[in-house]
Order: sequence, then C-alpha cells, then structure tokens
Amino acid sequence: MKGIADVKGFLCGTGKGNIKETLKLSNKKDILVIVSEKPATAAAIFTTNDVKAAPVKLSQKIVKTYEKICGIVANSGNANACTGERGMKDAKTMAKICQKLTGKAPFLVASTGVIGEFLPMDRMKTGIEKAVGNLGKATSKEAAEAIMTTDTFPKTAYFEGKGFTIGGIAKGAGMIDPAMATMLSFITTDVEIEKKLLEKALKEANEVSFNAITVDGDMSTNDTVIVLANGASEKRITEENYKEFLDGLTNIMKSLAYQIVKDGEGATKVARIKVIGARTKKEARKVARKIALSPLVKTAIFGCDPNWGRIIAAAGSAGVKLVEERIELKIGDYLLFKGTKADYDESKVHKYMKENEEIVIEVDLNLGSASFEYLTCDFTYEYVKINAEYRT
Amino acid sequence: MKGIADVKGFLCGTGKGNIKETLKLSNKKDILVIVSEKPATAAAIFTTNDVKAAPVKLSQKIVKTYEKICGIVANSGNANACTGERGMKDAKTMAKICQKLTGKAPFLVASTGVIGEFLPMDRMKTGIEKAVGNLGKATSKEAAEAIMTTDTFPKTAYFEGKGFTIGGIAKGAGMIDPAMATMLSFITTDVEIEKKLLEKALKEANEVSFNAITVDGDMSTNDTVIVLANGASEKRITEENYKEFLDGLTNIMKSLAYQIVKDGEGATKVARIKVIGARTKKEARKVARKIALSPLVKTAIFGCDPNWGRIIAAAGSAGVKLVEERIELKIGDYLLFKGTKADYDESKVHKYMKENEEIVIEVDLNLGSASFEYLTCDFTYEYVKINAEYRT
Repeated sequence: MKGIADVKGFLCGTGKGNIKETLKLSNKKDILVIVSEKPATAAAIFTTNDVKAAPVKLSQKIVKTYEKICGIVANSGNANACTGERGMKDAKTMAKICQKLTGKAPFLVASTGVIGEFLPMDRMKTGIEKAVGNLGKATSKEAAEAIMTTDTFPKTAYFEGKGFTIGGIAKGAGMIDPAMATMLSFITTDVEIEKKLLEKALKEANEVSFNAITVDGDMSTNDTVIVLANGASEKRITEENYKEFLDGLTNIMKSLAYQIVKDGEGATKVARIKVIGARTKKEARKVARKIALSPLVKTAIFGCDPNWGRIIAAAGSAGVKLVEERIELKIGDYLLFKGTKADYDESKVHKYMKENEEIVIEVDLNLGSASFEYLTCDFTYEYVKINAEYRT
Repeated sequence: MKGIADVKGFLCGTGKGNIKETLKLSNKKDILVIVSEKPATAAAIFTTNDVKAAPVKLSQKIVKTYEKICGIVANSGNANACTGERGMKDAKTMAKICQKLTGKAPFLVASTGVIGEFLPMDRMKTGIEKAVGNLGKATSKEAAEAIMTTDTFPKTAYFEGKGFTIGGIAKGAGMIDPAMATMLSFITTDVEIEKKLLEKALKEANEVSFNAITVDGDMSTNDTVIVLANGASEKRITEENYKEFLDGLTNIMKSLAYQIVKDGEGATKVARIKVIGARTKKEARKVARKIALSPLVKTAIFGCDPNWGRIIAAAGSAGVKLVEERIELKIGDYLLFKGTKADYDESKVHKYMKENEEIVIEVDLNLGSASFEYLTCDFTYEYVKINAEYRT
C-alpha cells in the first residue's frame, strides 16, 4: 500500500498516546506526525460547519498566514471540538511540541474522535514524542491506521506521474453525509507549484471527489483536507502542465473518496448515482445529491429492491424543475422508467443488485447535456446498531 | 374518535375496491368518499415535488377553477403516480363516477399507495359505488382507516369552537421526511368563510403543523391537504374573528401532525426539537430542521444516548452563522452544553430518554428572540426492515 510516506522528501512517524483511554490495551497507534524535509507549499479545505473544532480554526489561520508549511500533527480518539479556549490552547500546544522536537515550523494540526472532551495533554505529549522518534519509519499504511476511528480498513492512494508522485491517506467512516462523522485526508506530492495554483487544483479535484460523496452539505466539526507540495522532484507545475497534475490529484482523491464510501458505517454496497441530461452541472449535482441522501433509496439498495418510484420521487424533490415525462431511469443496464414504467423483468434487476457490490443508478433528465456523479452507500441494520449504541 | 364525519353537513362513505390485490382477503376498506350537503368553500395545499401524481395535478386545477367543491374521493393502495396520460384519465374518471352517482360536482381526487402502477378502474368503480352507497354511515374513524397504507392506527382530530366545529383525518407513515411517503389530510368545518381567508388560515396552520414535521423539504408525489368549509353552522368567519378559527384549525392540524410522527415507520419515540434565541424564525426553523433530519441524531434518540455533540454539529451545519460559544443545549431539564460541555449526570439523562416516549431537545442559540419547533421520530432497526424489504 503506497501512499504519503512514499513521496520524495516526506517522513511519517506514528506513536501511541492512548488518547482514547478505552483503547489503552489495544496496540492501536493514535498519533501521526508528517514532516517535509524542505518547507512545503500548502493548500487546505476545511469544514463549512459553523461549529469548528479548535485544530480546524488553528490550521485555517496557519495556512492563511504562512507560504510554506513543515508538517502535520494529527490524532485520533478525541476531536478537540466544542472545547472552548482550552481546546485552542491544547491544539497550539500540539504544534509547539512538534516544532520543539523537530526544530521545524509551522505545523498544521488535525484531530478526530469524540466531541466535547478535553485532550489528555500529558498522554498527547508522550504520543507525539514517540511519533517524532520514529519519523521516516512509519509506512503509508501505518500512517493511515493512526488516524482511523471507526474505520474498518486504512485508506491510502498513490499516483506516479511523469517525473512526480502524489500520495494520500484518508479516514472516514460514519455515514459521512448527512453525518457528522469526521473526514480527514492528507496528501503529499513532490512537485513544485505556486500556492495559488495548488489551491485551485485542490478545489477542482475536491468538487468531484470528497464533495461528490455528500461530504459537503453537513460537514463535521473537524473535516480537513490538506495537500503539501515540497518540490523535491524538481518537477515544476505551471498553467501549461497544470492538467497533468490535476489529473493525478483527482485520481488520488477519487480513490480515497471511494474507499470512504465503501467503508461507510454498516455499508454493504456502494451506489454510483449518475445524473445525465441535466440543464446545468449544478442541477445535475442537486438531483444526484437528493437521491444519494434519501434514506428510502438507501434502504431499498440494502434490500436490493429496484424501487424506482423512490428514486424518481427523490429526484423530483430536488427543486430543479425536472419534467416527469422526459425522465429515463436505469439500474445497471435495465431500463425501469421512461416517462412511465418501462417493461422489464424485476427479478433480473433484483439479481443484479444482489450480486454486485457496486450498484449503478443512472437518471437521464433529458433536459440538456450536463451531468454529475455521486457516490453513496446503502443504509443497513448495522448502521442503526453502530449509531444507536449507548456510549460507554 | 370524533372527526370529519361529525361536522354538520358532511357525509362520509367507505367501500372496498381491492385496489391493492394483495389486500383482497383482508377486510380493509380502501375507498373514501366525502360529500358536503351544501357546496363548500375549498382550500388545499399540494406537494411541491416536480413529480406530481395525476390526482394532485387534477385536484390542483379543480381547486383553482371552482369557488365551491361538493366532495372528495380518495383511495389507498395505489398512488396513481408516474402513470402518464392514462393516470390523468383514470383520476378524472374517479371524479366522474362520484358526480354521476351523487348528482353533485365537482369532486377533488386523492390517491396513496404504490407508485408507477395503473389504477384497476373496474375495481375502483365497484369500490366507489359501495362508498357512495353508504354515504353518511361511515364514522370518522372508518374514514381515516380507508386511507391508511402502512399506518398502524387511524388519525382523527376534532375541535369544538363557539358555534362551529372542525374535523380532520390524516394518513402518514413512512419517515415523512426525507421520505417520499405520502401524507394525506382532509379537514371539514361548518363555518362560513371566504376562499381567500380560508386559504390564508390553511397556509398559516400548515407552517406550524405538517410543515414542522419536515414534510416540506422532500414532499412525496401525492401529498395533499384539503379543507372544506360548508357554512352549515352559519358561523361567519371574517378578519375580526379570524384568530378564533385559525386557532381551531391549527389545533386540529397540529394534533394530526403529531399522530403522523408518532406513527413514523418503526418509530419508538417522538422528539420535540425546540430552537430558541434565534435571530429570525426562518433561521430557527433551519436549525431545528437540520437536527430533526440528522440520522445520527435520530439513531442516538433510539439508543437513548444524550449525544449532544451530534446535535450541535447538526445545528452548526444549518448555515445560519451560529456562535458555538453562545449555544446552550438541554435534553429534558438537563443542561448538557453551555459553550462547552456542562456538568451533568449522563446516567440521569439516559434514564430520562429511556423512560419517556416524547423527548424534548432544546437548543438556545442566544442570538435573538425568534424560535421554532419541529417534531421528528427516532431511527430504528424496524425502519430499515420496513423499507429494505423486497416488495412482493
């Protein structure tokens, strides 16, 4: 599993701070430190939630203030959210500890885990010391594992372009949307690129990856995506070869986004919602998102029930003035609706849904030529179980 | 159970048409005919879904065209939605049959049930004939039962004002929102009132009743609320005594709305989401709605888990620029959050949630004096079961 640690000039270290006391006896590491040998150009996207965790507020400020960033320190087990002034002080301390130990600055900070509890700073210090202590020894997989919470597998991605590489890790779990589950993703690359251009690329790639798995609408208090470019490959990205880099970044982020949906709490299937024939991309996105968010559609997918009525009704509620008579709806290769119910063999569609881990739902609005694709997962007993269980 | 049939000048009749063949052997009636002895002033609210069932399109037109309405014909078991031109022809035929049998016109039409199937018009005719045949014999409870689908109990309400009465029935089930489950409600009253004023009252009452149980956002293809006022009491409602009538209507619609939430698919608890201290009513509504729709909040309620972090995060994602430090959150009488985590005994809050069928969640934004209240239900295994089951 290649990823961030395999990109030239980046070192990863992980440590165990027992941030979540209940994991004390497990050997789960919960601290990740990423260091760039040379200061790196940074771009980041943060949650749009009005309630932002302390590390989010801090990192937002640092990314705005500094041209170059030296690294990232992250922990799982505690989100340091809704923790007021003390929470901000603790987030700053995390960065300070890293700066002191590495002699580099500044560091970005990210946290994920339970909301409303203060960080155990003594254990945090121990964990960061261990992580910095084995800088360069942690693999990309170990880096991804250190930020896992209820994730069931580590998420990494790697891209090799002409003369440059991009690596990424992510953690998701939760229903992502409309969930308040935290999504974190750290991406490293050895290209040399202007901050403005890197920000543009991240924004563009994000629209069709993390923002196309319904992470946007109800982002959590901690969601953070950071990309660091340290120029170690001496491959310079300009407006001329921008596309080359954007494709690689998009590839990485789409792969991580897919892994997050696949690992949605209790999920057994990934559904690819393709909306085509829309007047505008914005309208296509609206319709796809409505379908992707509908609990009735998500439960039908779990039940392998080709219940097109729910899909059409969800689409109709998106408020894009679609025309019922023009709608064509397919599940897999089966046409189920064309203005009215199409002639199809329901048992065959049921079989397709039962036998495939990825279900493709295509809705053609026949109003234009714009399209958008959303990823969602099914809605299962297990999801209710995971989220209804009384903490402790 | 008093309701629409107990209002002076209104007659109800129910019949069995076996519209849904699988219910053939049950003795569930599935046709309801309501007749007003004197033509009645009518006001109605219909789904905002772009995909509207044929009966919705037809009734919308009739209500717009005619000052006075003579009755309503409704069926359960088939929604007559996504059925194209033939669906519209069938809806018109339903009205025609009633007009022929009663010698009155016009009739409004409503349907609820499966989407995408054509109505069995032969059986429909038989059912309507039976219903008209026992006009005046059906009780309000029987009227409510005739429009039930997956509802587990009939929903009726009755209000006695000074010299006038209002009766109502409704059917809901489904998660209502973001569900595509159909909500139907028929209200009768013997006041004399101008159409404009009746429309105003219905709209006002709807905002704090059916539109405060998150029925609005993703309305189904069939949602319909109709109120008929036949003036049989000779009580005249004008701008002067408008409030008196509005209070009664609001009372009826709030009662029906509550019953719908209580009967939400798989629901075990009703949660009352009170948002206070907002800048505007619109913002209070936005926040309350976000909380009421969050699957994470709804599953936490099912688990009796006072997980205030999820509630705060949901509120923060409403996009009303709330200020974390000012938020105060209560579950029952327990203060859980006041800028940061409050000092409370979690086991007591858990006990409160476990022992009560109605959970009150109050979020004070401390930004102003506007407030709004939403009703929602919990999210259970049973909900997934009901909606994941493969039809047939």
